[in-house]
Amino acid sequence: MSLIVKKFGGTSVGSIERIQNVARLALKAQKKGDKVVVVVSAMAGETNRLVGLAKKVNPIPDSRDYDLLLASGEQAAVGLVSLALNTLKPFSGRGFLGYQVGIYTDSVYSKARIYKINTQVLKKEIAKGVIPVIAGFQGMDLENNITTLGRGGSDTSAVAIAIALGAQVCEIYTDVDGVFTSDPRVCPEARKISHISYEEMMELAGLGAKVLQIRSVELAAKFNMPIHVRSSFHTGEGTMVVSKKLLGGLEKVVVSGIASDSAQVKFSLQNVPDRPGMAAGIFGALAKAAIDVDIIVQDIPTAGKLSLSFTVSGTDQLKAARVLKKIGGAVRIVQEKDLAKVSIVGVGMQHHPGVAAKMFELLARAQINIKLITTSEIKISCLIDGALEKKAVRVLHRGFGLG
Amino acid sequence: MSLIVKKFGGTSVGSIERIQNVARLALKAQKKGDKVVVVVSAMAGETNRLVGLAKKVNPIPDSRDYDLLLASGEQAAVGLVSLALNTLKPFSGRGFLGYQVGIYTDSVYSKARIYKINTQVLKKEIAKGVIPVIAGFQGMDLENNITTLGRGGSDTSAVAIAIALGAQVCEIYTDVDGVFTSDPRVCPEARKISHISYEEMMELAGLGAKVLQIRSVELAAKFNMPIHVRSSFHTGEGTMVVSKKLLGGLEKVVVSGIASDSAQVKFSLQNVPDRPGMAAGIFGALAKAAIDVDIIVQDIPTAGKLSLSFTVSGTDQLKAARVLKKIGGAVRIVQEKDLAKVSIVGVGMQHHPGVAAKMFELLARAQINIKLITTSEIKISCLIDGALEKKAVRVLHRGFGLG
Repeated sequence: MSLIVKKFGGTSVGSIERIQNVARLALKAQKKGDKVVVVVSAMAGETNRLVGLAKKVNPIPDSRDYDLLLASGEQAAVGLVSLALNTLKPFSGRGFLGYQVGIYTDSVYSKARIYKINTQVLKKEIAKGVIPVIAGFQGMDLENNITTLGRGGSDTSAVAIAIALGAQVCEIYTDVDGVFTSDPRVCPEARKISHISYEEMMELAGLGAKVLQIRSVELAAKFNMPIHVRSSFHTGEGTMVVSKKLLGGLEKVVVSGIASDSAQVKFSLQNVPDRPGMAAGIFGALAKAAIDVDIIVQDIPTAGKLSLSFTVSGTDQLKAARVLKKIGGAVRIVQEKDLAKVSIVGVGMQHHPGVAAKMFELLARAQINIKLITTSEIKISCLIDGALEKKAVRVLHRGFGLG
Repeated sequence: MSLIVKKFGGTSVGSIERIQNVARLALKAQKKGDKVVVVVSAMAGETNRLVGLAKKVNPIPDSRDYDLLLASGEQAAVGLVSLALNTLKPFSGRGFLGYQVGIYTDSVYSKARIYKINTQVLKKEIAKGVIPVIAGFQGMDLENNITTLGRGGSDTSAVAIAIALGAQVCEIYTDVDGVFTSDPRVCPEARKISHISYEEMMELAGLGAKVLQIRSVELAAKFNMPIHVRSSFHTGEGTMVVSKKLLGGLEKVVVSGIASDSAQVKFSLQNVPDRPGMAAGIFGALAKAAIDVDIIVQDIPTAGKLSLSFTVSGTDQLKAARVLKKIGGAVRIVQEKDLAKVSIVGVGMQHHPGVAAKMFELLARAQINIKLITTSEIKISCLIDGALEKKAVRVLHRGFGLG
């Protein structure tokens, strides 16, 4: 008998039929003898609906009340899934909001981080044979305020709960069959990956493969919690995200996947005085406003001035512009939006020089101009015109023989 | 400087424009020098949408998880109203859910009763100049479960908060101009009442005048909290609901209003053994299932058997039928649905014999058959065919000279 945390995303609870399906999947696992905990996102479209309403009343709704608003979406889904469970087998489910099962976070609204889960309530329910249905995406700070964990935060909720309860695996149910070598909608030859390391998954997730929130993978890696990404529409195996050590021979593949991320915005700061603390001041202010900066590139200074470029997600553009306005002086700020970041990911990459060169060549041959480049040990990313995103993904997928 | 609790119903927060209007009304009162607390319902249609979803996954969704589900509607409205307030004057609003401001209730889900409000958090916010925006309709029981107060429960939330904070008045904003002598959609001659006593308002509310939840009036009467029922679309005076003592000469009117309540169901139990404890058993079981029984009529027993009739709201029909099925024995149960209850209400009524006779005569002349009659000191109600409801209201309104 083992404990399994099953997380269902928005599409998996997107209709009455799907909610009933979630209840059936949970009870089926319980009948097999497993103990089951369910974590749910808001019904598909609900969070977007709430965000749309919020923006209509307040164009920059980044605050405590915004989190309180958004958290209502998961709450409704929890109620419905638990009610569905109780029809199949009376009172086998019980819904819980973040604060009710002691999911404590810091107070960074909209991007809160979990620091503790009080498992007392959950353990009591599980021991009784109840299937707890928990709202993902939300928690509570020390002052009783509702916080949310950022888009896709339900994955992180599920992994954190799995770790806190010592679950055997955290199953992430989604509307795709698993993790693919690229987005199948963009790249018809994309293949499902059966096993992938936390590190590669982090790069893929961070680069816009929307299957898992990157923080959930970081967390799973830290505590070695296996994640099973699988379809909620059939019982076939999906993709196991596990420690590199467990993968063995599978590491031989150099490039394991292509990811892309649209709606990127590039800020270029020109005439920045070249003195110590300048960059720290700028990025410190952005961090304080909880804006994730992605690629950063700095030129060699000329006559005591330098240029600094960086990218942020399109959703943070307004906020970032407000922060930067305060810099003042002679600094000139240029924004370029509608950009895309395409990336190749693979654990073996660092030992294979020439992978980067091949990537640049493939893009060049396809007439795709590169605006910024950034690399890590297991990935190479290029910022390009957003309109060419799909083309670039297909070119790279074919070029690296992933089909 | 006085403290005012302003409650906005679903229609008053039913769109972005109306939410912005709520924020403006609250700030306007604050600018005049008053301290303001806002209580909101879910956006119009939202509770019905959630109820519809719940019924699709679970036909009898009366439980803890149902309340958790429904409470999400008010939560979204709270977030939006507070966000709207913060656009007009940054950070003047702050949203709160029932549990966050210590609204404690019993554990009777869907019909919970408030027993305590912990005003500490609210008083601190008000002292800072913040306008707290509180979710109506919801609370928390002693075990941290979310409870709801029943349809229209936001009125009760608002009155309870007004009492706990020692407010000067509880303003109930709605989509009508106040309390009318009858439903203006049914009866074009209906007039707005400027002042009405708690007692009359309770009868009107209990009889289906949907302006106020009856429990909110009971509560206001107990603590002498004035209620001002007014329109959220203009600044004109509405109806003041106050103590009978304050009304003085206004009591001279005999019949002050006509109310009606549709979707009533009549249960008739035949062959009930005439022995002590029988009625107590039946109505005890119904009460335990939290079903409100309205009119009760019992025949004179014949040969040790009696007939018992009573009415419940159409929404409780299924539940009531389930409870009654357990009686067993030779008892025969007959259900009659689609009935309406029309009532005349007035404080002076008890001192004017002949009012009842006049009511029955007016209905008879209009060919409306009376199925059950019930009376109190200040109201007389008749159960009739639901199809004749509007006709009956008009006949009585005219007959008692209320136009």
